[in-house]
Amino acid sequence: MKRIQIGGKIIGRADRPLICTPLVGKTRAAVLEEMAVVVPKQPDLIEWRVDFLESKGDIAAVIDLASEIKAVAGGIPIVFACRTLDEGGGSSPLNDADILKLFVAACASRCVDAIDYEMSNPAYNLAMLREASRENGVTMILSYHNHQFTPDGAELAEKFGEAERLGADMAKVIVMPKASEDVLALLWATLKASRKCRIPLVSMSMGRLGSLSRIFGWVYGSAVTFAAGMNSSAPGQMSIEELRPVLATVRHAVEDS
Amino acid sequence: MKRIQIGGKIIGRADRPLICTPLVGKTRAAVLEEMAVVVPKQPDLIEWRVDFLESKGDIAAVIDLASEIKAVAGGIPIVFACRTLDEGGGSSPLNDADILKLFVAACASRCVDAIDYEMSNPAYNLAMLREASRENGVTMILSYHNHQFTPDGAELAEKFGEAERLGADMAKVIVMPKASEDVLALLWATLKASRKCRIPLVSMSMGRLGSLSRIFGWVYGSAVTFAAGMNSSAPGQMSIEELRPVLATVRHAVEDS
Repeated sequence: MKRIQIGGKIIGRADRPLICTPLVGKTRAAVLEEMAVVVPKQPDLIEWRVDFLESKGDIAAVIDLASEIKAVAGGIPIVFACRTLDEGGGSSPLNDADILKLFVAACASRCVDAIDYEMSNPAYNLAMLREASRENGVTMILSYHNHQFTPDGAELAEKFGEAERLGADMAKVIVMPKASEDVLALLWATLKASRKCRIPLVSMSMGRLGSLSRIFGWVYGSAVTFAAGMNSSAPGQMSIEELRPVLATVRHAVEDS
Repeated sequence: MKRIQIGGKIIGRADRPLICTPLVGKTRAAVLEEMAVVVPKQPDLIEWRVDFLESKGDIAAVIDLASEIKAVAGGIPIVFACRTLDEGGGSSPLNDADILKLFVAACASRCVDAIDYEMSNPAYNLAMLREASRENGVTMILSYHNHQFTPDGAELAEKFGEAERLGADMAKVIVMPKASEDVLALLWATLKASRKCRIPLVSMSMGRLGSLSRIFGWVYGSAVTFAAGMNSSAPGQMSIEELRPVLATVRHAVEDS
């Protein structure tokens, strides 16, 4: 498992994954209420799912809220994410051009520490965001989401490599399993990619079948696992309170035996 | 995950693996002391590793002790196992003929509920034990142990099938991983075999790398996991106290998400 850099500094510990907690509020008030609940639980990262926000079309309002989030985050790094419907995102999606503007504005505001952007976007968008994120010291995560199925292991491993070639600071692959074999394929692909890639990787198999990948994916090279602080953002997501003791036991099992 | 029958009755529950705890005492006193510690922890099965017993060459003494174990087991089924050194067994091994006699005597005594015998034994031995176990209502587990490495997934899956063709009531595959891929291969093989075999399966990847298979192998079709009650019998084995809450959380994650 390769460790993640935020603002040029490695965060977290070598023997456990970072816990990332989503914010999925639809309004400013709901998001700030989530922050009030989530921050005391001290996740390692907070992923702000801007696609759930009703006012996401108003860039100034989004950046204002980003600034408010940062002010109450107590130093917990904020990951800015805005998915389309295809990527499992919230309703009333923005078009690609508006999403790109939003990401560029988020980087420029320096109120977010990382951005999470789909690697299937046009090369022009990726290049623009790479520049905007680098200039502002923002970590760029390039991700692949598949809410329908799990491609085979070799194709999944290639997704991580693709993100690296596209200049990502971190590669993320999130897929939906249809059978338990798919979960093993995702773990296998993460393991293979972690031996080849220089950048940190994050992977996850969703839903009931995939939920185990949230617990032990880090053993196979995934640097981050997701857990709900107040509201879950994906099927199969446990709460921080449930996940922490399980991770501790898995760590104990892996280290001491 | 197919469930195990002992004395013709299905034991355990559909939503969790059975926990099997080993007895590894070298003397009668040590074994009975282990029973006094282990029974109150209420494992689902107790595996008596007779190969660790110094007096294992004395069949009458072994059967006497089997009877004493049964008397204090409070109904917890006893699995009778006697491994050779190659199979990871204790020191001063018996020869194959003496081991066979011991197993036949154990079946005849009806003091044990199951026997665990290596599937690589000669066909004659397997047939004799199949008869002795069936006549006495003893469950026959045929097992494959590899303490050196993990064969590839297809070969592992075939081991379960071989045990079924040899007439086993249950098939067991225990291997040593050299890399994390080997653990995934074992899980994959268990899953594949669980879709083909009619009998229940047990699988385990040993050591530090394999220890996770003890926690979530049941999700991939392994009906039993092993945990130490007093003394561990294999590298990577956790205690019952450590394992139970982790299994509960994994169950929760798999069921509720």
